[in-house]
Amino acid sequence: MIRERHLFGPGPSNPYPEATRALASPLLGHLDPEFLRIMDETCEMLRTVWGTTNARTLPLSATGSAGMEAAFVNTVHPGDVVVVAVNGLFGQRMTDVAARCGAEVVAVEHEWGQPVDVDRVLSAHPSPAIIAAVHAETSTGVRSDVAALGAGKGDALLLVDAVTSIAGIELRADDWGIDIGYAGTQKCLGVAPGLAPFTIDDRAFERRVEKPRSWYLDLGMLGGYVGEASAKGGQRTYHHTAPTAMVASLHAGLTRILDEGLDAVHARHQEAGDALQAGLQEMGLELFAAEGSRLPELTTVKVPDGVDSAAVRKELLERFDLEIGAGAGAYAASVWRIGLMGRNARPDAVLLVLAALKDVLGR
Amino acid sequence: MIRERHLFGPGPSNPYPEATRALASPLLGHLDPEFLRIMDETCEMLRTVWGTTNARTLPLSATGSAGMEAAFVNTVHPGDVVVVAVNGLFGQRMTDVAARCGAEVVAVEHEWGQPVDVDRVLSAHPSPAIIAAVHAETSTGVRSDVAALGAGKGDALLLVDAVTSIAGIELRADDWGIDIGYAGTQKCLGVAPGLAPFTIDDRAFERRVEKPRSWYLDLGMLGGYVGEASAKGGQRTYHHTAPTAMVASLHAGLTRILDEGLDAVHARHQEAGDALQAGLQEMGLELFAAEGSRLPELTTVKVPDGVDSAAVRKELLERFDLEIGAGAGAYAASVWRIGLMGRNARPDAVLLVLAALKDVLGR
Repeated sequence: MIRERHLFGPGPSNPYPEATRALASPLLGHLDPEFLRIMDETCEMLRTVWGTTNARTLPLSATGSAGMEAAFVNTVHPGDVVVVAVNGLFGQRMTDVAARCGAEVVAVEHEWGQPVDVDRVLSAHPSPAIIAAVHAETSTGVRSDVAALGAGKGDALLLVDAVTSIAGIELRADDWGIDIGYAGTQKCLGVAPGLAPFTIDDRAFERRVEKPRSWYLDLGMLGGYVGEASAKGGQRTYHHTAPTAMVASLHAGLTRILDEGLDAVHARHQEAGDALQAGLQEMGLELFAAEGSRLPELTTVKVPDGVDSAAVRKELLERFDLEIGAGAGAYAASVWRIGLMGRNARPDAVLLVLAALKDVLGR
Repeated sequence: MIRERHLFGPGPSNPYPEATRALASPLLGHLDPEFLRIMDETCEMLRTVWGTTNARTLPLSATGSAGMEAAFVNTVHPGDVVVVAVNGLFGQRMTDVAARCGAEVVAVEHEWGQPVDVDRVLSAHPSPAIIAAVHAETSTGVRSDVAALGAGKGDALLLVDAVTSIAGIELRADDWGIDIGYAGTQKCLGVAPGLAPFTIDDRAFERRVEKPRSWYLDLGMLGGYVGEASAKGGQRTYHHTAPTAMVASLHAGLTRILDEGLDAVHARHQEAGDALQAGLQEMGLELFAAEGSRLPELTTVKVPDGVDSAAVRKELLERFDLEIGAGAGAYAASVWRIGLMGRNARPDAVLLVLAALKDVLGR
């Protein structure tokens, strides 16, 4: 029996039907002119959702976490100072990934649930090579002010995790001074997990590591196949076999999003998130993320005293085929994460998740 | 308009219909018990096609080339001597990947089109940490004797690329002494590209790098989510979001293969390859791979004098929606690669590709 789940956790979300259909389309080879057209259009649409004109904007052939690795492995020279704003699990992970690349990491720790303190991050070191932060912390449901980091970055490169923000809330890589950005397909883009939309500007590319520790994620080599080559209309060099079905699916998801209009898609996420957060508070539940910094697409809510977090999630899954997420890290048992992302940012999804929670909690 | 291509190149091949249908099944979350069951069954079926009982057998969340990277990045300590048998493009690539991991690489060069010279590889260094070879060279269509390397490896670890051999020809990781192996889904497994089936035995795992340069491919961390954890029936630790649609598709492809029977699948590849190679020679074409070492699933054939290789491939694609591959490296214009892999290892595919080539070549 095939289970049909409502994927209302921190991701993956249920894909757009267009994206699912494309997954099952006849497969193309990675050097087929027809596929290269799909790849080029995908890169172009990614530029729109990133808010960038970077030639080197492409879907990496792995999940969002590999995007993080690609960001650091291509730009951190051994001994480089990397200031990382840590206000959740993914900021923490950045410190681990950067350290493996040989960085001297300066972690600026924050209380989880709070946005990044821009002044503290910008004054953490006099001359960092890279300043890194998470735009939308998937672990806490918090939005941080990336534009302010960009305005104050000085000579440093700004490296941003946009896994949970892309196509969900405003994201303007060029205007905000993002030099290196990575994302995932399985959240607000409404596509299955498996690709990492990535962008890097000329400034960062010129400072890149010539021969990074990773062959698979070496942007200099990847540029021969997508991004650079397509922008120049040049010859394609085979690097690795692109996951063609996943790219076709991303193409379909992006087409759907841009047909609807990026502003309309953002507004839909905002409305769904506002309605969900209002409804949860009406039920007497307390939100976890700091007021004023709450993501609409991913809501964190405190588990009421005396309630078994895992038992509630299990009951939601078994009775209603409805998945919500546990908290992350130290908040695993005390916070729930509810995502209404991509296709799921809709009024009926809000009603359903509120009704299901009411039922299970007996409120 | 959707193009339906016959993917008779070196991969991807047309997926099994079961694998395509599974890609478009309702998406599951990566921590859903239903998905974890699919993941565990996938790992178990992978053990069968690898010919191993290794607990740590799993699909890595990226393409086959990332499998190569995972193999080296987890096992090469800086300064380790790594002997690499180079008889094609993928052996060459191994030397690059190993060097980035800090290996002292001893490359044993062969003429392309020839199998690995086991004696030369085994005597290349008195005490290598790792001996690495490609079982089925995708660039040349050549099979090498991995079992002989395993028999003579001594204390070294044997690291094997099985991207084009897995589920196409006999592969017995445990019997042959393969300590570390990686593969891809898009060839004889009959699934879209996007995952790297991987296996590592206890001997290699015990010698692994504790904190490898790659976070994404860190087997110690991945073990908390699949492989190790599932083998022990233990708790799952979130590492990254698994590409759930791709894993479901691999599960369906493996189920199809094991339903047919692995021996029967191998026999089907052998018959299709034999018929193709006989047919090409009857047309007066010359095969490229050394006789006695020819892969049935991937045939290399010399482009006749005076024939424009690219023009023929273009005409095959445009008139018959039939893709064959160019040669690799120095043989780009002088060799074609014809793959009959997975779903395409069938008599009708043999007839079609022979008839199409006859038509285009005017023979």
